[in-house]
Amino acid sequence: MFEPLHLAAAPCTPARSGPITRPVMKTRTLLTVLAATLAIAACEENKKPDDTKPAPKASASAEKGATKVDQAMLAVFAALPAANAEADKIALGKMLFFENRLSKAQDISCNTCHALDKAGADGKKLSEGHKKQAQARNTPSVLNASAQFKQGWDGRWKDVEEASTAHITDPKVMAMADEKAVVAVLASMPEYVDAFKKAFPADKDITLANAGKALGAYQRALLVPTKWDKYLAGDKTAMSDDELKGVKTFLDVGCQTCHQGADVGGSLMQKLGLVKPWPDQTDQGAFAVTKQETDKMMFKVANLREVEKTGPYLHDGSVDSLDKVVAMMADHQLGKVLPDDQVKSIVVFLKTLTADPPADLVKAPTLPKSTPKTPKPDSK
Amino acid sequence: MFEPLHLAAAPCTPARSGPITRPVMKTRTLLTVLAATLAIAACEENKKPDDTKPAPKASASAEKGATKVDQAMLAVFAALPAANAEADKIALGKMLFFENRLSKAQDISCNTCHALDKAGADGKKLSEGHKKQAQARNTPSVLNASAQFKQGWDGRWKDVEEASTAHITDPKVMAMADEKAVVAVLASMPEYVDAFKKAFPADKDITLANAGKALGAYQRALLVPTKWDKYLAGDKTAMSDDELKGVKTFLDVGCQTCHQGADVGGSLMQKLGLVKPWPDQTDQGAFAVTKQETDKMMFKVANLREVEKTGPYLHDGSVDSLDKVVAMMADHQLGKVLPDDQVKSIVVFLKTLTADPPADLVKAPTLPKSTPKTPKPDSK
Repeated sequence: MFEPLHLAAAPCTPARSGPITRPVMKTRTLLTVLAATLAIAACEENKKPDDTKPAPKASASAEKGATKVDQAMLAVFAALPAANAEADKIALGKMLFFENRLSKAQDISCNTCHALDKAGADGKKLSEGHKKQAQARNTPSVLNASAQFKQGWDGRWKDVEEASTAHITDPKVMAMADEKAVVAVLASMPEYVDAFKKAFPADKDITLANAGKALGAYQRALLVPTKWDKYLAGDKTAMSDDELKGVKTFLDVGCQTCHQGADVGGSLMQKLGLVKPWPDQTDQGAFAVTKQETDKMMFKVANLREVEKTGPYLHDGSVDSLDKVVAMMADHQLGKVLPDDQVKSIVVFLKTLTADPPADLVKAPTLPKSTPKTPKPDSK
Repeated sequence: MFEPLHLAAAPCTPARSGPITRPVMKTRTLLTVLAATLAIAACEENKKPDDTKPAPKASASAEKGATKVDQAMLAVFAALPAANAEADKIALGKMLFFENRLSKAQDISCNTCHALDKAGADGKKLSEGHKKQAQARNTPSVLNASAQFKQGWDGRWKDVEEASTAHITDPKVMAMADEKAVVAVLASMPEYVDAFKKAFPADKDITLANAGKALGAYQRALLVPTKWDKYLAGDKTAMSDDELKGVKTFLDVGCQTCHQGADVGGSLMQKLGLVKPWPDQTDQGAFAVTKQETDKMMFKVANLREVEKTGPYLHDGSVDSLDKVVAMMADHQLGKVLPDDQVKSIVVFLKTLTADPPADLVKAPTLPKSTPKTPKPDSK
């Protein structure tokens, strides 16, 4: 009666790579399964490895020695699930963030314009990309950027992952020709090959999308909570009386009409010059992307986290001082000419949105050495 | 026409703590919202803080100085999302795993029986819990345990989180009286209060469930891939010819009928003595929990990862040698009396399932010092 056990074969189902939730297999079920394997034995021959898992390959010829293992029978096994894949993605993302070889001339990295020792920006009116090309708009801070509802001054990218890959292949920014060029660089260094395998165990090859995911994971870790977060969490002693006066002024003036959410901004689009037309209409904001009349002068409301350290301000970097930009916003967006003491009070609050990011998170990592296979810089 | 802007107030919606996906707010919408705030202004007064977010509290009296901020207006803001919460959970879980003060007599921790320097077990037939009480069954390794479909020899716990909290309050194991007793210990040390806040930013208080989640996160990181995983992933040079012969013997004999999945076991329940009745029927397995006739002698199929180092074997720790247990399994489960060379060949394969866990992951952490508030050990 138990003879079929001798013929036990792998059932014709793909192995799972996630945690196993297989139901209890009772004796009768087991025998049924075993009997069924006889009938479906033929299917094993034709089975294609499932490309969502680390698939045992049928290239038995590559094996050492003479022993041939029926690769189809390995389908009942599975790889271990990933252990804290997020930490591996963040570690890889940090390397990529500091990686000059992700630019065509191998002279700039994400960290060039989003300098982590300068509060995630570079203090310039307009940053310089490939061949010193001036960027179209001021570089916003990468710190806390992931908490915004969209990325870019005109909200053209849905998240930090999309923004990251777009910058790498933008001819005006890092100017890599295409995904192939990016992969050629990364795949030339065994340390990157390993780091991608660790961070994306289900994927065999390095991809631009996965580079974007790792960069995204790193940026999502670049969050800098301040005393403001302690205050919001219920610690009413976290802010001084002057700072609370600043909060009150901010609210009384109505700044929170637009500057809302986790980043005290970055949560909606708004017309620059809502009440009083903006003096410089050169850059029409989201209109440049959508060509919709209603998008004229629409910009993403600026993220006010770390604003103290991330001037010059506005999409064109045209305003140097925080006092000045606060007064301009009140005037053009809310139709209010603020007295100096109100401006200063708001700035006192804005400075509570500043803190240092965790030191070990922003410390430049050691990058792998180039190999003979690593493409050379191209400054053309 | 823009006068209502002067009266701008927080809309009567809860703030979000996750990434913001607020749609574009156009001028007209904005004005509508502002007008609406006039009508709903009264609701602000009655608004209760949403307890799923770090709620601004209305206890303005606790604030420093004289400035009173209308707490309801803070609802438009939000805390930053958590940065790599998984890493924070793992770090906390590691502390808890080594924490003797989570046992009543403060003399044993998870690591006492699941010793990470002994492949996640303790090498004893039966481990000793509170007051040296012998456990009912042999301690299985904690390494790779999270990849099993259920936890415990009889599968009584659905996951490592559930198993962890059950052990802490089990009178025969760590013997903590209840959640209150656990929280009294942890909340007495500021380092734990901070670590819980970091790992579970949305939760104000320490809970047993969150201790279980942190312990679970740590255990889910305790995965030890070996050359077997490399082989499964397609590296046909990862295993020697002898080891491949072992795989072939394992498959030919039919061990994979039960020992499947990521842990080469731990993925289903099976009757011990399926073909030939098991000699010792004292422990009836899952029957003890379910009282179902069909559950008599049903045990979870043993996880074979690290099996080389985690003897003695079986639910009662009754078998010392790996050779012996392999022969017994073939005999009682598959009705096959294996010649010695087949047993030895299978054992060669089983030894490929051994590797060392990452050193920094299993190194004992520095634990916080007890404070005057920390409950004293109770060895009764």
